[in-house]
Amino acid sequence: MDLARLIDHTLLKSDTDQQAIIKLCEEAVKHRFASVCVPPYWVPEAFKQLKKTTVKVTTVIGFPMGYSATAAKVEEIKRSIDEGADELDVVLNICAVKSGNWNYVRNDIDRTTTAVHLKGKQIKIIIETGLLTADEIREVCKICQELEPDFVKTSTGFNGPGASVEAVQLIRQLLTDNIKIKASGGIRSREDAMRLVEAGAQRLGSSSGIKIVTEM
Amino acid sequence: MDLARLIDHTLLKSDTDQQAIIKLCEEAVKHRFASVCVPPYWVPEAFKQLKKTTVKVTTVIGFPMGYSATAAKVEEIKRSIDEGADELDVVLNICAVKSGNWNYVRNDIDRTTTAVHLKGKQIKIIIETGLLTADEIREVCKICQELEPDFVKTSTGFNGPGASVEAVQLIRQLLTDNIKIKASGGIRSREDAMRLVEAGAQRLGSSSGIKIVTEM
Repeated sequence: MDLARLIDHTLLKSDTDQQAIIKLCEEAVKHRFASVCVPPYWVPEAFKQLKKTTVKVTTVIGFPMGYSATAAKVEEIKRSIDEGADELDVVLNICAVKSGNWNYVRNDIDRTTTAVHLKGKQIKIIIETGLLTADEIREVCKICQELEPDFVKTSTGFNGPGASVEAVQLIRQLLTDNIKIKASGGIRSREDAMRLVEAGAQRLGSSSGIKIVTEM
Repeated sequence: MDLARLIDHTLLKSDTDQQAIIKLCEEAVKHRFASVCVPPYWVPEAFKQLKKTTVKVTTVIGFPMGYSATAAKVEEIKRSIDEGADELDVVLNICAVKSGNWNYVRNDIDRTTTAVHLKGKQIKIIIETGLLTADEIREVCKICQELEPDFVKTSTGFNGPGASVEAVQLIRQLLTDNIKIKASGGIRSREDAMRLVEAGAQRLGSSSGIKIVTEM
């Protein structure tokens, strides 16, 4: 299976420098990854490096905590798209989920999804499965099913456990096929990747993309 | 020494719920801490709990990565102040520092500091000392000396090492007394706290505040 076209080649450390971003982009072109996933600050540089290629630019919004104000997330989305982002990975407000404030959760997903779709771009809602109960995952997916982000993404990779086969299978059962699944967090080998794809993931976020596509 | 009045009683996990915030506020009142430090989502609840007390409400902006757009940080600052925040702990754009983009760093600190000061509130710039070289700390402090945030804060506690005596001493040498120092990250005992205060810290961020003020 050609895993490369499923991979968002990811570098999100807070001290990422320009050289690291240029290298990431070169690797993504060479291995034909789906996109690079970079900090908002580096979207202009990634766009510059990739504009003549098929590799997309993904960035992260409200990352990795998810508890910033919806208005701040929307501002960050608009800015990132203006600067060249194709795909926006937006963190769910987990504080609101944990307090049963479902109106807030719905409004947060609605306004961010609308902001992205108005510009014709793709949004992935990061739901941080490792911190949610199965019931909370069900409720969040019900809201996503209504509001139709392009992807539901499992994890930030910074808070708690990353993607699990069980979480991907559960999400796949809860959503119709028009909403895809991105698995991320702790995907470090071809074996990890294959298990998640078999469970239903159509995109993989990893900083080990090269290892995944080159190991036997 | 009365350490309690120096402590920002801190809870910043992405899955923090309402009960945890209410408990944090009650503890802060009981022990007479300087403030509670909570996610932006929980500022209205903390304000409601603390408005008749002397305990301030602190929140975090661009936390913990610092690489979100300046406009998004400013939006988050305005929203948080409107909702009751007294002190704003804003993360430096470390990506920009690492690439020597000092104009960006200066503008980011300038616009966030201005947004906070226009509303008469206090700002702390989190410089993440554990990820910076001594030369980078010097350059950042030079910019802070010009732009005059109320505090320079050592660390987020989420990326790399937390506060060190050496970092606090270095920052103290670089800034005049009108800019205070908040040490944070990994402060878990009265001994930790005392060493940092002796090095020059005038505020301490910790999730172990009760242990610090009750242990012998």
